[in-house]
Amino acid sequence: MQTIGFIGLGIMGKPMAKNLLKAGYPLIVYDINQEAVEELVDCGAMAGRSSKDVATKSEIVITMLPNSPEVKEVVLGANGVAEGAQPGTIVIDMSSISPIASQEIAKELAKQGVVMLDAPVSGGEPKAIDGTLAIMVGGPQDVFAKVRDILLHMGSSAILVGEIGSGNVTKLANQIIVALNIAAMSEAMVLAVKAGTDPEKVFQAIRGGLAGSTVLDAKMPLVMEGNFEPGFRIELHIKDLLNALDTAHTVGVPLPLSSQVLEIMQALKVDGKAKEDHGGLIQFYEKLANVEVRK
Amino acid sequence: MQTIGFIGLGIMGKPMAKNLLKAGYPLIVYDINQEAVEELVDCGAMAGRSSKDVATKSEIVITMLPNSPEVKEVVLGANGVAEGAQPGTIVIDMSSISPIASQEIAKELAKQGVVMLDAPVSGGEPKAIDGTLAIMVGGPQDVFAKVRDILLHMGSSAILVGEIGSGNVTKLANQIIVALNIAAMSEAMVLAVKAGTDPEKVFQAIRGGLAGSTVLDAKMPLVMEGNFEPGFRIELHIKDLLNALDTAHTVGVPLPLSSQVLEIMQALKVDGKAKEDHGGLIQFYEKLANVEVRK
Repeated sequence: MQTIGFIGLGIMGKPMAKNLLKAGYPLIVYDINQEAVEELVDCGAMAGRSSKDVATKSEIVITMLPNSPEVKEVVLGANGVAEGAQPGTIVIDMSSISPIASQEIAKELAKQGVVMLDAPVSGGEPKAIDGTLAIMVGGPQDVFAKVRDILLHMGSSAILVGEIGSGNVTKLANQIIVALNIAAMSEAMVLAVKAGTDPEKVFQAIRGGLAGSTVLDAKMPLVMEGNFEPGFRIELHIKDLLNALDTAHTVGVPLPLSSQVLEIMQALKVDGKAKEDHGGLIQFYEKLANVEVRK
Repeated sequence: MQTIGFIGLGIMGKPMAKNLLKAGYPLIVYDINQEAVEELVDCGAMAGRSSKDVATKSEIVITMLPNSPEVKEVVLGANGVAEGAQPGTIVIDMSSISPIASQEIAKELAKQGVVMLDAPVSGGEPKAIDGTLAIMVGGPQDVFAKVRDILLHMGSSAILVGEIGSGNVTKLANQIIVALNIAAMSEAMVLAVKAGTDPEKVFQAIRGGLAGSTVLDAKMPLVMEGNFEPGFRIELHIKDLLNALDTAHTVGVPLPLSSQVLEIMQALKVDGKAKEDHGGLIQFYEKLANVEVRK
């Protein structure tokens, strides 16, 4: 079996790396958090001394990091992956970052014969633990074919969407839709309740029609309980929307509604709700309208 | 069987009235369009001379009209329903209007012992023809119980949501969500295509996850064909969003995203697209970004 390097052992990276160990792959890990490294070593992983060290000893290097700057630093920076990688090494960046950054990093790596896939995930910590993430991949078909089985130890699906960057473009499209569908539910339901109707009855009346969505079915029951435990944190959705707008500005697309929902999330962050579930966006409207959408 | 009056024989009202005839109800109809009246008379209806005349001869009066001003005029105006109705007459307004207007009209009718339900529908002309509309009802439970069977000759569901006006509040909540879910799809997909990905692949990658919605499944295939045949026309969605904002301003709820999607629809109207399907909203973004989301 190929030796896999895994850099970034956070909330998502740790269970993903553990699933590769369970599948029997020799694993070399690195993180600036020494505790997380020790936890993986206890599970059977080897500890790398640096990102460069991990890359030197691996055929495939997976990164799972917070955002574009961290991926650039870990891959292209001092003692980074690029310094240790050999021609033929495959880098799979599974972080959710700007697709423009993915393309820039891949271009640098290509100069030394190192090939990269961007492969962001959706599903959150529970699906990372279960190995049932949805993985959206950008990069060359033949490289994807080589690593598809590895990805499927971390996800229940791995779909090649297009060229490098396409995985993150798809993720951003997903996050735009989720954010705006949550805002749609929020404006509709706060209006309905302030106008005197029962939110449960309105929910049941409309969910089977054209207004139906996975967001509505997943989030409305939690809203009606006042349950805004994450789930997916508002601060992470802010990061994704900032990357969406950055990409949109680069390629030339106006996103007036996405930029407005971003500002609403920023307002919630100022209000101390950054670590609540993105379904908690409805509280922006509840506060302004002085009403609560509860059972 | 009770005699039913039916006022408003437009695209929706005509097939709804025909379904009541098919169910065997004696029907008295009125419309300012004489041709539509004659068509119903050929099917077995009687022709009323005015809205007042219809109300005089009916136990139940159904109205299906364009918007709040028309319903006020037909019900409360000269030679209107109120002049002909007796104590105990039931008025069912199935138009999609402002819930504030519904409440005002019901209050006037109550002074003479006439009771009203607001019962707007969703589903469009094909479902009006098939008798499979979704009917959202506001008003007293006992009145709803008396007319539920009649409604179910026009719709496959009739749900009592709350007090008078609640039917239209529910309809507006529905329309807010549909408009914003279409805008969400539009921003996401125009970005994805301008950033170089295949819309079909992005669609397939995200539709099963949290971004999934009935709008996405119903409208994306049409968008990728460039098919913007209505369906539900942009000009009607403009009307609904204007009623939503009017209601929101009255009860005190800010709807920043709904107001923005309304402005986008207004821009499309200026651009000659008022009679296209609301899925055609994506053309606002396509034009600005100079890209088409097609297969």
